[in-house]
Amino acid sequence: MKYFLTFSLLAGMALNIQSQDFYSTQRASWLRKAEANKPSLFETIKQPVGLVTIEEDSRAFQGWAVKPKSPVAELYKKSFKAQSGVVVDFGEHLTGYYSLTLKPIQGTSDAPLRLKLTFGEVPSELVTPFDPYPGTLSRAWLQDEIVTITELPATLTISRRLAFRYVKLELLGSSPFFDFAITGMSCKATTSAITQPAPLKEGTSNLIREIDRIGLATLKECMQTVYEDGPKRDQRLWIGDLYLEALANTYSFKNHELTRRCLYLLAGLSNKNGFLFSNVFETPEPHAQEGAPFLFDYSLLYNVSLKDYLVATHDKETALDLWPLAKKQIENATTYLTPEGIFDHTQAIKDRWWLFVDWNDKLDRQAAIHGIIIYSLKQTYELAKMLGKENELEHVPGLIKKFTAAARKNLYDKKAGVFVSGAERQVSYASQAWMVLSGVATQAEGQKALKQVMTLPDVVKPGAPYLYHYFIEALLQSGLKTEAKQLVSDYWGGMVNKGADTFWEVYDPSNEKTFAL
Amino acid sequence: MKYFLTFSLLAGMALNIQSQDFYSTQRASWLRKAEANKPSLFETIKQPVGLVTIEEDSRAFQGWAVKPKSPVAELYKKSFKAQSGVVVDFGEHLTGYYSLTLKPIQGTSDAPLRLKLTFGEVPSELVTPFDPYPGTLSRAWLQDEIVTITELPATLTISRRLAFRYVKLELLGSSPFFDFAITGMSCKATTSAITQPAPLKEGTSNLIREIDRIGLATLKECMQTVYEDGPKRDQRLWIGDLYLEALANTYSFKNHELTRRCLYLLAGLSNKNGFLFSNVFETPEPHAQEGAPFLFDYSLLYNVSLKDYLVATHDKETALDLWPLAKKQIENATTYLTPEGIFDHTQAIKDRWWLFVDWNDKLDRQAAIHGIIIYSLKQTYELAKMLGKENELEHVPGLIKKFTAAARKNLYDKKAGVFVSGAERQVSYASQAWMVLSGVATQAEGQKALKQVMTLPDVVKPGAPYLYHYFIEALLQSGLKTEAKQLVSDYWGGMVNKGADTFWEVYDPSNEKTFAL
Repeated sequence: MKYFLTFSLLAGMALNIQSQDFYSTQRASWLRKAEANKPSLFETIKQPVGLVTIEEDSRAFQGWAVKPKSPVAELYKKSFKAQSGVVVDFGEHLTGYYSLTLKPIQGTSDAPLRLKLTFGEVPSELVTPFDPYPGTLSRAWLQDEIVTITELPATLTISRRLAFRYVKLELLGSSPFFDFAITGMSCKATTSAITQPAPLKEGTSNLIREIDRIGLATLKECMQTVYEDGPKRDQRLWIGDLYLEALANTYSFKNHELTRRCLYLLAGLSNKNGFLFSNVFETPEPHAQEGAPFLFDYSLLYNVSLKDYLVATHDKETALDLWPLAKKQIENATTYLTPEGIFDHTQAIKDRWWLFVDWNDKLDRQAAIHGIIIYSLKQTYELAKMLGKENELEHVPGLIKKFTAAARKNLYDKKAGVFVSGAERQVSYASQAWMVLSGVATQAEGQKALKQVMTLPDVVKPGAPYLYHYFIEALLQSGLKTEAKQLVSDYWGGMVNKGADTFWEVYDPSNEKTFAL
Repeated sequence: MKYFLTFSLLAGMALNIQSQDFYSTQRASWLRKAEANKPSLFETIKQPVGLVTIEEDSRAFQGWAVKPKSPVAELYKKSFKAQSGVVVDFGEHLTGYYSLTLKPIQGTSDAPLRLKLTFGEVPSELVTPFDPYPGTLSRAWLQDEIVTITELPATLTISRRLAFRYVKLELLGSSPFFDFAITGMSCKATTSAITQPAPLKEGTSNLIREIDRIGLATLKECMQTVYEDGPKRDQRLWIGDLYLEALANTYSFKNHELTRRCLYLLAGLSNKNGFLFSNVFETPEPHAQEGAPFLFDYSLLYNVSLKDYLVATHDKETALDLWPLAKKQIENATTYLTPEGIFDHTQAIKDRWWLFVDWNDKLDRQAAIHGIIIYSLKQTYELAKMLGKENELEHVPGLIKKFTAAARKNLYDKKAGVFVSGAERQVSYASQAWMVLSGVATQAEGQKALKQVMTLPDVVKPGAPYLYHYFIEALLQSGLKTEAKQLVSDYWGGMVNKGADTFWEVYDPSNEKTFAL
C-alpha cells in the first residue's frame, strides 16, 4: 500500500495538536491483549521439487516461461562449479527461512566461497537484473543476497525471511584447489493458517477451484503473526489488508485469534487523538509509522472488520472493549463536507489526508469515499445494535439519511445511469461499487450502473485486486451473480492462466509488466 | 603461500601408498596437547579515528593517498543517505569482528536497507573495483560484504573475521519514507599476543623503531589461535610461518604456549607416512589439506622450529615427545640425490614435490634446497644433542660432510665468487643465503658471495619478505652487520615509508602493484 504514501509530517503533526489523549488508559491493555493473541507459527520444512530453466517466450507471463530441466538430485551430486546459475524450483510459493548445505567433494576447503542467491516469486525476477534499480521503494526489498562462506562443510541460513518459489544460485568466488557441491537445501515455511478449509462443493469448475486454491495460498502466505500486506514487501499490518484477509479467513482457515490480535494491535497503537494509524509494525516492539498521514478510508473500514469479527465469533467481550475506538473513527464522517453535504475530497487532500480506495492514481476519490463513509456508518450502527450501544449513535441514522440524499442528488447521473465523482464528473468502477455497497443506489440503479461501467469506454478501471473485491461484492449485492462469477473468472482466472502461485498485489491484464516491486 | 601450490592428488597418493602408519598411537595425544595449548584470544574494542578521502597521488603507495577529512562524529550525527561512499579509518590494522549500529532519525523504518561494506588494509582496496576479479585465488578473500538490514534500530556484525584498517560504507537501497544515521561502529580486535615486548635500546634510529613497531603489529595480527599465514587471506598455519613467527615471538611477545600448540597441531596431523603437511586448518576440527603436495623445505624447517622452541623454553618434555617426528623429517634429506650427491630438484619436481623457498617463480631452487637440507641436518643434530639423542643420528654428521663437500664442488663458482644453481648455473639471492646459512661457504666466501649478489646485474632477487629474512640472517652470520642493517632499512623501511601498517606478504620495491591478493 506504500505506493501512494506521500510522506507528511504535517498531517501527523496537525492531528497531534489536540491536547486530550484518548484511550491513554486502555492502550496498554489493548497491546497486552494483542500480544496474548499472537498466534504460534506453523513451520514446515519444504524441499525443492526440481531444477528449471527460464526461457524467453512471448506467450508466457511477462515473456518468461519456466521449463523443467532435471531432478534436484542432479544439482546435489555434481560439482557446483559447473552448475553456477542454476534455478531451483520449490514448486509452490513459500514464506520462510531458506537454508543451504555445502560440502567439499575434492580437496580441502582452503578459501572462502562467495555465492549470490536470488529469490523470485515469478520467473522474470530470476532473469531480470535488479541493478540499476529504477524503482522508488527500497532496492533492499528485492531478494538477492551475496554471502561469504568461510569453511566447508557449511549450512547457511539467510537471516531475513523470504517469499519465493524459485531460487537462482550463482558462484561468485571459489578456490581452484578444491571442489564442492551443494548437497541440500530447504525452506522452513511459516504461516498461522493451520486448519484445512472446507472443500468446495461438488461440480465447482476447475477454474474456480484453481482460483480458490491460489486465493487460499495467497491468504496463507500473508497470515503470519499479523495479516501482512505481503510476505515479500511490506511485511506488516494495514487496516485494508486486515479487513479483506480477515473476511477471507472467516470463510476458510478460521484463525479468529489472529483477527483479534490485529484489531487489538491497531487499537493499542492508535494516535493520541483517538484515530487509527493505517498500518503498524510488530518489531522490535509494536509501533506505528511516525508522521505518516492518516488514511481516511482505512480508519472507517476498521469498524466493518470489528463488526465482521463479532458476527463470526460472537466475542462480545472484545467488541465491547474496542467499541469506544470504533465510535471515535466515524467522527471523521463529518470532518470534510461540501456545502452540498458531499465528502469534500479536495479539502481533505489539501490537508494531506490520504485517500486510498485503489492503486489507480487517475481515480477521483470523492464518490468512493463518500460511499465508504455511509457504508461505515451503517456497519458501525449494526455493530452498536449487536452490542446494545445504539443509544450512543443516535445521530447516525440521520447522518446516513442526509449523506444518502446528498449523494443521490449530486453524484448520480440519472440520464447516463451511472454515478459520477468530482468536478469532472468522472465515471469509475470505484464510484459505482461504493455507491452500491453504501446503499445509495437502489437495486435497479445499482444493476444498471455496474453493467454500464463494464461496457463504457474511458471509464477508470481498478488498478488492483483490492478494488476488484469491492466491485464483485457490489455485483453480488445487486443480484448480478453471473456477472460477478464472470469477472472473478476473467480477472483472477487471468492470473491463474498466467501461472500465478499467489495472487499479485497489482495486476493489470493489459499491462503485465506493471508490477508491484 | 598458496600461489605456488600445484594441486596434485598424485603426490599425496604416492606418499600414502606406504602401508605402515607412523605415529598412529601418538597422533591423538599430540592433537589433545595442541588443543590444551590453544591460547585465549585477547579482545579489544576498537573505535574508528576519523573519516578520510582517498585521492589519486602518483607519489603515494600504489598511486593512492589517504587524506584526513573530518572526525567520525560527522558521520554519526548526520543522515547516512547524504554520506554514502564515506571511508572510515580505524587508524591501525585490525583483525577481528566488525559491528555497525544504525538508528532512524526521521520517520519510521518501513523497508529494509541494503548496504555494501568494503574493508581494506591499504588505500587502493577502497577505490579499485573488485569485479571483474582477475585473480586466480578465490574472489571471496576480498573483503566486501553486501548486507540487508530489515529493521531499525539495528546492530549488524559481519560474521566473518576481517583484517582491515579502512572501511567504505555505501548505501545500495533505502526507503524514501524514513531517514537514518550510522550512529556507531567498532571492531572487536583479537590476538594472542598479549605481553608487551621489551623496549628498543636508547639511540635506536626512528626508522628502525618504525620497522620494529610495524613488524610487531604484523606479528600480533598473525598471532591468533595459531601463527597464521595472514589474518586476511590464508588464515591458517603453515610450517614456514610458524618458523619465522615463532622466532620473532621469542624476541617479543614470548607466547611460547602458541608455539607449542602449533608444533603439536602439525604433529597431530602428520601423514601416515610420518611426514608433515605444509599447512593445517583448525576448524571445524583440525585437519590437513587432503591431497596437497608435500612441501619439501617446510617439513625440514619444522625441526629448526622445534630446536628454537627448546632453546627458548627448555621444555624438554615437549621436545622429547616430538623428537621421533623430527627424526623422521630428515629422512627426506636423501630422497633425491644426483650422482654428484646434490639435491636432484628436477626429479623432485617431476614427482610433484613442492619446492617453495620463495615466491619468485624464476628461481632455480636446487642450491637453496640443498642448503636447507644441510641446515636442517645440522639443526636437528643440535636438537638431538640437547635431548641426549645424538646416538639416533649417527649417520647425520657423515651426511652433512658429504653434502657440504658436494655443494662446494658442484655449486660454487670460485672464479665468480658466487654459488650457482641448476643446469643454467643461475645466480640468486636464495642460493647465496642458503649456502651461507648451511655453512657450505666459509666466512670469507660467504661475505664475498653475499656482497657480489647485491651488486651483480641479472641475478634472481627475492620475491617477498620471507626470503629476505634468510638473506639478512646470512649477512649477519657472515659478519656483514652494516649491510644487513642497510638492507632491513631499505626493504622493510621502504614499506614503512610507503605507509604500511603491517608488512606485506609480497613487496617488490620496483613494482608496487604486484600484491598478494
